[in-house]
Amino acid sequence: MKVSIPKGMRDFSPEVMAKRNYIFDTIRKSFQLYGFEQIETPTMENRETLTGKYGDEGDSLIFNVLQRGDKLSKALTGDELKAAKKSDFENVTFFNKNVSNLADMALRYDLTVPFARYVVQHQNEIAFPFKRYQIQPVWRADRPQKGRYREFYQCDADIIGSDSLLNEVELVKLFDEVLTNLGMKDFTIKLNNRKILSGIAEVIGRPEMIIPITVAIDKLEKIGLEKVNEELAQRGLSEMELEKIQPLFKIEGSNDEKLNQLGSFLADSEIGLKGIEETKFILDTVNSLGLRKATLDVDVTLARGLDYYTGAIFEVVSNEVKMGSICGGGRYADLTGIFGLPNMSGVGISFGADRIYDVMEELNLFPESASASTQVLFTNFGDQEAAYCLTILYQLRAAGVRTELYPDAAKMKKQMKYANDKQIPFVVMVGQDEMNSGQLTLKNMESGEQSKIIISELVSYFNL
Amino acid sequence: MKVSIPKGMRDFSPEVMAKRNYIFDTIRKSFQLYGFEQIETPTMENRETLTGKYGDEGDSLIFNVLQRGDKLSKALTGDELKAAKKSDFENVTFFNKNVSNLADMALRYDLTVPFARYVVQHQNEIAFPFKRYQIQPVWRADRPQKGRYREFYQCDADIIGSDSLLNEVELVKLFDEVLTNLGMKDFTIKLNNRKILSGIAEVIGRPEMIIPITVAIDKLEKIGLEKVNEELAQRGLSEMELEKIQPLFKIEGSNDEKLNQLGSFLADSEIGLKGIEETKFILDTVNSLGLRKATLDVDVTLARGLDYYTGAIFEVVSNEVKMGSICGGGRYADLTGIFGLPNMSGVGISFGADRIYDVMEELNLFPESASASTQVLFTNFGDQEAAYCLTILYQLRAAGVRTELYPDAAKMKKQMKYANDKQIPFVVMVGQDEMNSGQLTLKNMESGEQSKIIISELVSYFNL
Repeated sequence: MKVSIPKGMRDFSPEVMAKRNYIFDTIRKSFQLYGFEQIETPTMENRETLTGKYGDEGDSLIFNVLQRGDKLSKALTGDELKAAKKSDFENVTFFNKNVSNLADMALRYDLTVPFARYVVQHQNEIAFPFKRYQIQPVWRADRPQKGRYREFYQCDADIIGSDSLLNEVELVKLFDEVLTNLGMKDFTIKLNNRKILSGIAEVIGRPEMIIPITVAIDKLEKIGLEKVNEELAQRGLSEMELEKIQPLFKIEGSNDEKLNQLGSFLADSEIGLKGIEETKFILDTVNSLGLRKATLDVDVTLARGLDYYTGAIFEVVSNEVKMGSICGGGRYADLTGIFGLPNMSGVGISFGADRIYDVMEELNLFPESASASTQVLFTNFGDQEAAYCLTILYQLRAAGVRTELYPDAAKMKKQMKYANDKQIPFVVMVGQDEMNSGQLTLKNMESGEQSKIIISELVSYFNL
Repeated sequence: MKVSIPKGMRDFSPEVMAKRNYIFDTIRKSFQLYGFEQIETPTMENRETLTGKYGDEGDSLIFNVLQRGDKLSKALTGDELKAAKKSDFENVTFFNKNVSNLADMALRYDLTVPFARYVVQHQNEIAFPFKRYQIQPVWRADRPQKGRYREFYQCDADIIGSDSLLNEVELVKLFDEVLTNLGMKDFTIKLNNRKILSGIAEVIGRPEMIIPITVAIDKLEKIGLEKVNEELAQRGLSEMELEKIQPLFKIEGSNDEKLNQLGSFLADSEIGLKGIEETKFILDTVNSLGLRKATLDVDVTLARGLDYYTGAIFEVVSNEVKMGSICGGGRYADLTGIFGLPNMSGVGISFGADRIYDVMEELNLFPESASASTQVLFTNFGDQEAAYCLTILYQLRAAGVRTELYPDAAKMKKQMKYANDKQIPFVVMVGQDEMNSGQLTLKNMESGEQSKIIISELVSYFNL
């Protein structure tokens, strides 16, 4: 029998778990420091809660959970399905309807939609503005590839029920706090605003083109001005419209300088100016508070989440390791409207644990103390010696020292190999001699040094 | 639109999460203290990894994840399915085969089978004996009822690759450690051994009847001796066999006395005597080490996990709150044989987080410090005041104090209600007066007391 796990999924070994926990614990601690409270939602949601919320592509990536028993028999033997031809299944409506009959539940695709559902369902128990955090896995039936998994953790912090831009300020500071605490020394928080993007499209006279225009601008650095203009023309911008947009490509300098130039460009767009004003407030307030290691950078080409963000847009990249964005987020004016609770503005951010892990691994940022593995191993020379060791071992544990006794009286070589493999830093050896003298043998596994130590000293040796 | 979650599933509010985390953290800390290392396995396993491992009933309770795209179309439009009648689906083989075609993955049903799969798959990277712990949710399509959920956490610690009974000793101590640390004062660890049960069936002359015999014995306390004998007769024990079993029902006294009487009863059963010897070793060694709050009780009626346990069997009950078992476990001689790695003996235990939660709730055992919610709220009187507060707030956070600023300049009543609802113990109020004098107003929300405090004192007030 071949033993394996589904593609795109992962087992986590003790060594990797220790590092992952270090990331999660650091994030959790900062979330709490900033007043966010944890919730958890079920792995499975009713299928209708999730479908239609992530666009057609998203819908097709949702994992559905099969009905059981009678409900399944009924769906499988229904007339419509029996009459169906293979070609019918290429019809999305037909296919979705039949999948709906077969599957009533689906696996969480992100943390935002379940959060919106939670807020609506529990609105009478919640103290608004609600600052919640959530650290849970999500599932996507994406094509697996390097760095892209079908099961991965999201770490989200959102504030819902407050329009205040102070929330955006707090979230910028939170990015800085968490990533600095994780040991990163050079990373950029990119800041944009959906209203600025709307303003640009408005000034050009093509408000409906906001997404293709932004996507084209986004490529400026990669493909150069000429190609961007070609693409914009291809997407239907007239020569006059193209001319109008050119000043945008010349914007440069510090954040303040960029915002000033943008201000001239958007002078005729009310919404655009509003976006600049918001960005300026966030920038000024963050600057007055200062940042530890992050650089905050206004970036009008940032085009993340245009389908749903309505205000500030965030993205964080490491400047030490080349690897897409490691965090993201933004403001959505109406998060819970889809579930019947309108006018709830929210702003949130998400930490990508897997990419952060890869950056930290590459920069060697995990401290040794991240490991929670055994500190002291007692070797086992036989029943009598083991019984003697156990009483000492429990004294160490009572003092909080992570300790174990090798359970079998195996060959010493095997026991030492065990200590080595498990990277246990100290081994205590107790044979008949040691039992008679009360002088235990303590071996430092890193230096190889051996010394004699009495029991009472042993406890205080580790209990520092 | 009705907003809900699937039945048998749960949302966890911040208050409940804090308590659950307190349980998980306590368990995790003890697991680490005892030298166990954490792993995680994917939520989804290949369907064939899980099916056939939990008996027919178990199989029917596994949640299956629907195939996607082409694979699904093919399964749905296959000839066999199209020709099927409703009655065909009452045929288990037919049904399972079609489900297999529709679903290639399934949700984790417990932590033991994925652990066995993990050990086989990663056998070359593991230092044996492998002491692993795992704290993850599992899913069962059980009929939901009070205290029984379709998604719930298991907290397992297992040692695989060692026959030593010292492992059993350690696990008994671990039960004691965790539950005592959680504040429980009176609980019983019941200890039995599959070999004793085999011995009983052997002595009666009906080794194949081990399960029905044990199940009947198990009811002694509930239904009385007469009814137990009736049930045994009904299950096919002859009068002579019934007579042979009677001495078993008279066994009583201390653990040692019970084992002595059992020794006479099982005098002719080699396996039975082996079971007594093992139990005596565990008992004696645990007694020499002592227990903190647990009582260890030999209980030959304990019939847990007879399908797979081959040695020691554990079960833990609270004596303060009536509620089935809160923990369980046992020894299995061959855990990984099903996946092609034979002769790996393992012993493990599992903590039932939900029942432990209910016991702790009823006994009021959750400490206030279990909450990780905000310690200090700054009220918001307007832009200027908020900006002033922010600089102080970040000093508190830098000192590790969980602090937040109310993001909007809302009515004071609303802001105070927020502090109350979120059970924030201290509120700092800064208006123009306070800004001018540098004397902030600090309100203790529990006592209602208000006092003046300068910034430098504020930080040291909380940073204790």
